[in-house]
Amino acid sequence: MAENIAVVGLGGMGSGAARRLLDQGHRVTVWNRSAAKATPLVERGARAARSPGEAAAGAAVVITLLADDRALEEVVLGAEGVAAGLGAGGVHLSMSTIAPTTARRLAEAHRAAGAAYVAAPVFGRPDAAASGQLWIALSGPPAAKDRARPVLEALGQGVQDFGEDPAGAHVVKLAGNFMIAAATEAMAEAYTLGEKCGLDRTQLAEFFGATLFPSRIYQNYGRMIAEHRYEPAGFKLRLGLKDLRLVLGAADANEMPMPLASLLHDRLLALAAQGHGEIDWTAIGLAVAREAGASPPP
Amino acid sequence: MAENIAVVGLGGMGSGAARRLLDQGHRVTVWNRSAAKATPLVERGARAARSPGEAAAGAAVVITLLADDRALEEVVLGAEGVAAGLGAGGVHLSMSTIAPTTARRLAEAHRAAGAAYVAAPVFGRPDAAASGQLWIALSGPPAAKDRARPVLEALGQGVQDFGEDPAGAHVVKLAGNFMIAAATEAMAEAYTLGEKCGLDRTQLAEFFGATLFPSRIYQNYGRMIAEHRYEPAGFKLRLGLKDLRLVLGAADANEMPMPLASLLHDRLLALAAQGHGEIDWTAIGLAVAREAGASPPP
Amino acid sequence: MAENIAVVGLGGMGSGAARRLLDQGHRVTVWNRSAAKATPLVERGARAARSPGEAAAGAAVVITLLADDRALEEVVLGAEGVAAGLGAGGVHLSMSTIAPTTARRLAEAHRAAGAAYVAAPVFGRPDAAASGQLWIALSGPPAAKDRARPVLEALGQGVQDFGEDPAGAHVVKLAGNFMIAAATEAMAEAYTLGEKCGLDRTQLAEFFGATLFPSRIYQNYGRMIAEHRYEPAGFKLRLGLKDLRLVLGAADANEMPMPLASLLHDRLLALAAQGHGEIDWTAIGLAVAREAGASPPP
Amino acid sequence: MAENIAVVGLGGMGSGAARRLLDQGHRVTVWNRSAAKATPLVERGARAARSPGEAAAGAAVVITLLADDRALEEVVLGAEGVAAGLGAGGVHLSMSTIAPTTARRLAEAHRAAGAAYVAAPVFGRPDAAASGQLWIALSGPPAAKDRARPVLEALGQGVQDFGEDPAGAHVVKLAGNFMIAAATEAMAEAYTLGEKCGLDRTQLAEFFGATLFPSRIYQNYGRMIAEHRYEPAGFKLRLGLKDLRLVLGAADANEMPMPLASLLHDRLLALAAQGHGEIDWTAIGLAVAREAGASPPP
Repeated sequence: MAENIAVVGLGGMGSGAARRLLDQGHRVTVWNRSAAKATPLVERGARAARSPGEAAAGAAVVITLLADDRALEEVVLGAEGVAAGLGAGGVHLSMSTIAPTTARRLAEAHRAAGAAYVAAPVFGRPDAAASGQLWIALSGPPAAKDRARPVLEALGQGVQDFGEDPAGAHVVKLAGNFMIAAATEAMAEAYTLGEKCGLDRTQLAEFFGATLFPSRIYQNYGRMIAEHRYEPAGFKLRLGLKDLRLVLGAADANEMPMPLASLLHDRLLALAAQGHGEIDWTAIGLAVAREAGASPPP
Repeated sequence: MAENIAVVGLGGMGSGAARRLLDQGHRVTVWNRSAAKATPLVERGARAARSPGEAAAGAAVVITLLADDRALEEVVLGAEGVAAGLGAGGVHLSMSTIAPTTARRLAEAHRAAGAAYVAAPVFGRPDAAASGQLWIALSGPPAAKDRARPVLEALGQGVQDFGEDPAGAHVVKLAGNFMIAAATEAMAEAYTLGEKCGLDRTQLAEFFGATLFPSRIYQNYGRMIAEHRYEPAGFKLRLGLKDLRLVLGAADANEMPMPLASLLHDRLLALAAQGHGEIDWTAIGLAVAREAGASPPP
Repeated sequence: MAENIAVVGLGGMGSGAARRLLDQGHRVTVWNRSAAKATPLVERGARAARSPGEAAAGAAVVITLLADDRALEEVVLGAEGVAAGLGAGGVHLSMSTIAPTTARRLAEAHRAAGAAYVAAPVFGRPDAAASGQLWIALSGPPAAKDRARPVLEALGQGVQDFGEDPAGAHVVKLAGNFMIAAATEAMAEAYTLGEKCGLDRTQLAEFFGATLFPSRIYQNYGRMIAEHRYEPAGFKLRLGLKDLRLVLGAADANEMPMPLASLLHDRLLALAAQGHGEIDWTAIGLAVAREAGASPPP
Repeated sequence: MAENIAVVGLGGMGSGAARRLLDQGHRVTVWNRSAAKATPLVERGARAARSPGEAAAGAAVVITLLADDRALEEVVLGAEGVAAGLGAGGVHLSMSTIAPTTARRLAEAHRAAGAAYVAAPVFGRPDAAASGQLWIALSGPPAAKDRARPVLEALGQGVQDFGEDPAGAHVVKLAGNFMIAAATEAMAEAYTLGEKCGLDRTQLAEFFGATLFPSRIYQNYGRMIAEHRYEPAGFKLRLGLKDLRLVLGAADANEMPMPLASLLHDRLLALAAQGHGEIDWTAIGLAVAREAGASPPP
């Protein structure tokens, strides 16, 4: 059944999601801070709103896909924001990677207005969003999750429900990004050890991607690390650093020591300090190689 | 074509390999320090030798699958050892997890006697050995690798050749075990973070095993960690600790700093110090939970 | 020359400072959230104010010594706060351990009102405050530092000026507390290694406190660690954890990777998670001993 | 009372010790692998032996001060070695930084020959040896320690007896060098944090060396780190790395997890891998600065 859906935030992920929803026959209203990003979607049939609040007004479900907690809070709680526009019974489907505490704050704001916050962060790149192949972790009030179901089915190849806590699914997302970064560090150390012992990095990456770790994370990231190919960035290091900050923030608030997360944070922070914030976050492989006195290609 | 093959060391892996070779129609001679382990194989048609040297005499290929470097060196270089029995042209197919330096030493001893050392460490549990489903990393002299080919094909679902250095494939094995331990630590931290934030550990493990990390390591180890089920041991913690020592030893000798390997070594060493050497090495999950003040089931 | 001085916050440090200032002949006004703490000082001649703002009104210098950033911000910026009471030309001498960003915010608020913020965090325990034996790190506007000079001379055995940035001296304090925690971890690992090798922990602590590290930190903390004597708390672990959070927060904001600070944070966080937040922060020694399977006395 | 004393190994420490013993009126025989090092001592009255064994023959006490375990074992157990020359009742005073296990092996060899091994590693630089200002940790058989007393009193400003285990004092030495390296890392992180926050590194080093940490380690090493002055090397990084290896080796053998020692080992290993093995081991400060994107002077 076609729905009125708003998509707020039109970076790669948001644009992909909006396109997918249009392709599936939904009525889509879009908004982005810099309006130019809306143009290609309007050409495909979307309606452009002049504010997040206007986008939210009349939408059954408002999707947000924004860069960080601060951007999300401004767009939701600011003047002409989503919270102001979203009517009673409306659902805010929050798909960004954010702090659990931010989710709780937004959920509270919506609840006070009779609307609902549903956490639905996603795993996948923009092309997965555009083709409905995302993995989605979900949490929030049962009735609101039901209302969001058609949207989730349009976007994801799989949706896993983690309960009612508005922060829950965001913790899942943070745990996942942490595990990806951990795999990156492990590959970087393993393949550089191999290199220093006379082996071929790429052969190692192919072997492990085909045997012990036959998953796209290990295969794709493994190849990038093996070849020291960190540009163009699929996921910018400074965003990965931001995510590790969120992981450690949640860990700290919940009295959860995470030494491996600390190690990863320090790696990414060092790379950012050295000016590598805009390349891919697999550049952990660059730091490992330099530390070992191995010389990556320029 | 049937071959005369010796299997020295009849723990789970060695017994599985011998059984598979018998099933495939090879003539198999076996030896084990405690002779009782040979009995079930003799009943299936194997010949029991009274010493490693006797097992090696007349064999085209001698497989060794022993607990550690010291056991291997005794069995190969000791009185009535493999090196003494293996004739010119014989191939020692060394499948244990050992130090690169040990491999070089043994290769040198064989070369002096006209025989050859082929490194062929394996990934997989005993049932994979018995069903020919191992992953095998290979390195050594080309002609000797060719002669070992029928044996490798009987035992493995895949064989990857890492060149001529007798130490090479052993480095691959160490890199792999390090990466497995790293995944264990990552899952333990991630799932305990989730637990402390109100999520279900098992649901997390299932989600990530089905989405980002669809591989048996993440699925099987993830379930063990989620359920804190460390007994019976599939791979004993003290053996995992031994492997991390080999990793750090190779890293140190090659001037390769590996902070994540250091972290894993310290984890396993702490668990061993606390008396947990005989349970499964995924007990990293136990250490993470205790450190976090989360209470695992007794 | 006698001055009108206000002391806001009468924990151990604040009470010690107020007593010292009275002993030196200054006119002292005090304020504390729970008023009972003021009684012994009033008996010695202090005047009790009903609000931080009342304490500040008419004072040349207002000292704050509070538990954390939030308490300080409430007392300064809240209703009837220090900022409201402090007249033009007044000096806020901020002696607590706080975040550099908090200092900048407060400095801005005072500047707008014609008053001045001087950072003056201290090293030393309450008895050092009461006897004028503190070490003081100083930063802020030159004229304001001059006006605070009589107070600083009454309280400290040494004052070091770190420039004009209101955040500067707070960074010095954080660096110092980090170094103390680092020394604690080093002693805990070293003395437990000794113990596991058959040596006497206390003898080790005495030896190093007399030879390589003849300073009170190593001597006093070393004895506590050697004897596993963590109660009564001289400095509570949860406050030490708070300080490590401030260190890592400042490090993160300035793109400064600090792996040792991360290690210390994770140690303290684990101890807090296990319920040890109220004992002395040298309980790092307890964590090290447990991890090693060494048994500290009950 | 004058004694016949042999000094084997004439690097800076050995030469300093021999000079001091001559100054105090002892009869001194010296030996060094490259004989030229003996010349200045012969000019002061020493006798040059042609082998370690010849040096030991007739000596009441043989001091060894060698670069590492292997050099020591060769000089003691090799042909014409100390063990062969040392008569029944002779004392081997072993002052190098070595592994506890090496000490046990040598003690056993001496015991079988009626001689005795006394561990007496030292803290201090060559000038402290030449002026009798070393700190000495001692362990071994009581009677042998008594016989070595005059030599110890000539060389040290303080001697601490750690019992009868021939390995004991060596563990003390390793613990001490670990603690020094830990202080170095702490200062490097603290002072670079300060620098990135706008403070002066040298002022920080002076402040903490005068207040919290008034000891020569913090003062001298702190200045080197603050100024990034790592040449000429007072103690070469590759020797510091060797010592951290010994620390971790002893820790591993005694099931003692030491995460801070692991961190320090990885730091030094990285610096060695980058070609900095011959500069001072305080170059930890260089690694910390580079990681942080701070630029040390060239």
